[in-house]
Amino acid sequence: MTNEELLGNAALKSWKQILGRFDKDLASLTDEQFQKRVAPGKNRLFYLLGHLTAVHDRLLPMLAVGERLHPELDEAFISNPDGTLADPVPVASLRSAWSEINNQLTAAFDRFTPQDWLHKHEAVSDEDFAADPTRNRLAVVLSRTNHLSFHTGQIVLAK
Amino acid sequence: MTNEELLGNAALKSWKQILGRFDKDLASLTDEQFQKRVAPGKNRLFYLLGHLTAVHDRLLPMLAVGERLHPELDEAFISNPDGTLADPVPVASLRSAWSEINNQLTAAFDRFTPQDWLHKHEAVSDEDFAADPTRNRLAVVLSRTNHLSFHTGQIVLAK
Repeated sequence: MTNEELLGNAALKSWKQILGRFDKDLASLTDEQFQKRVAPGKNRLFYLLGHLTAVHDRLLPMLAVGERLHPELDEAFISNPDGTLADPVPVASLRSAWSEINNQLTAAFDRFTPQDWLHKHEAVSDEDFAADPTRNRLAVVLSRTNHLSFHTGQIVLAK
Repeated sequence: MTNEELLGNAALKSWKQILGRFDKDLASLTDEQFQKRVAPGKNRLFYLLGHLTAVHDRLLPMLAVGERLHPELDEAFISNPDGTLADPVPVASLRSAWSEINNQLTAAFDRFTPQDWLHKHEAVSDEDFAADPTRNRLAVVLSRTNHLSFHTGQIVLAK
């Protein structure tokens, strides 16, 4: 691998590691356990899984790797806090949406060249990107990997 | 910036972002609040701060950027779970050790060239590194950034 490839590869490996850890936690939880809260008065696991699924679904267009697959999750899991709306889908649907979205993202990241990682993300304008080329896809993926770690730290508390 | 520099820069920026977020949470907590647990029966904030401080202190030799500053924290915060030993230091000492260690790490990362990021870390042998050059400093820093995010997700629950 070239230096550029090694540098991009580290981000890909980090994404896969954190996703793999989360998926292991997910597999160990029963559907009933998803109604538990991470701490008294805090989010249910169900809400966190929905939130993460919606946030990762938004990565598909943001990184120009596909169309959104589940925009119907935004209302309950991004626009509103836990407990505001009735749960829009059962846990099983969230589990399969989560896999579907992340499989598509990981498959795309696996094909990314260093230049692809440094491409601007779609939520930044050409002008802003020209002024600040660090607003690239790599920055977005590192940020979402940290976001996933953040909520994984909460989810393990309810196990 | 060259492509290599942009790729290394993304990791540095991610480290600074997550550290900055944690430091803001830290500043908003009183010393008394550090005795709170993140959830019933789980770690106290005090233990998590000690744990993170000890883990980051170990990065200094692991990334060959300095000698350890606070090896005395390992026994209470790495080798043993919360509540096993008496608290070895007051919160104020942990706060200052935390800043001291992370300031030294960040100053070193700020000077890292792409080649520095791809240098092997000190916990891997020359042979193992030759076989797997992804075991570099960049991988370690991404991993510790995720680790910090993981525990930040827990700490915010006690606020």
